[in-house]
Amino acid sequence: MFKLDPRLSSDTLQIASWPLCEVLLMNDSHFPWLILVPKISGATELYHLTKNQRIQLDAESIFLSETLMKLYQGTRLNVAALGNVVSQLHIHHVVRFQTDSAWPAPVWGKFAAKPYEEDALNQQIKMLAPIIEHKFLSACV
Amino acid sequence: MFKLDPRLSSDTLQIASWPLCEVLLMNDSHFPWLILVPKISGATELYHLTKNQRIQLDAESIFLSETLMKLYQGTRLNVAALGNVVSQLHIHHVVRFQTDSAWPAPVWGKFAAKPYEEDALNQQIKMLAPIIEHKFLSACV
Repeated sequence: MFKLDPRLSSDTLQIASWPLCEVLLMNDSHFPWLILVPKISGATELYHLTKNQRIQLDAESIFLSETLMKLYQGTRLNVAALGNVVSQLHIHHVVRFQTDSAWPAPVWGKFAAKPYEEDALNQQIKMLAPIIEHKFLSACV
Repeated sequence: MFKLDPRLSSDTLQIASWPLCEVLLMNDSHFPWLILVPKISGATELYHLTKNQRIQLDAESIFLSETLMKLYQGTRLNVAALGNVVSQLHIHHVVRFQTDSAWPAPVWGKFAAKPYEEDALNQQIKMLAPIIEHKFLSACV
């Protein structure tokens, strides 16, 4: 049975559960940073998913990506499945700005996370409403 | 019309051309590192591709990923679309080892690239034959 990795669990807030993935907000106020975790026990690489699961992941990732970029008007979106530290398959979606503190380097391992203050977190959650409230009409998982 | 970004062109060797993507070998002997570049003019984000193009990208990326991991027996495969430096959409596929020089950090911006010596490059090209010689039977691009 699928169980979220404890490190992912402690570094993030779970904001939605879609047909395939848990949707997590990284508790790091440096960047708008969301993570999709396919609820597939034992999967560590994208190619461990079935074709139908990958089609669903594509739908969830593209919706998340387009919505994040509309909401935050970023310069780029960094989309990555790395897993060198946490092996459970998870796909980062990080909105990047030419003005952000790590630009143009990748965000991983650059700074210690700076957890959201309560007000900033509430604001972020409000901002993310189109993601939090989104219902996928169909799923082929 | 699609034209490969000059920076990608100078940092890599083009080893194959698949229905959707150019297949590039990063000229950095630190890591087995391949890059897929969808031959779609103006695309900078994954969501700029049509659904059919993404289905084809999935096929090409999954084939590349599984083959790389079979060939090199890596610890993890890092798959990422970043684009903070080169905006043309390109998807990194980097075989990682617990023993590699950057582990567990990501590879980008960690070290200057260490180009292959002639012999090592020839050996690498030989190793990559299943990728270089692969023919996709159908394409829905």
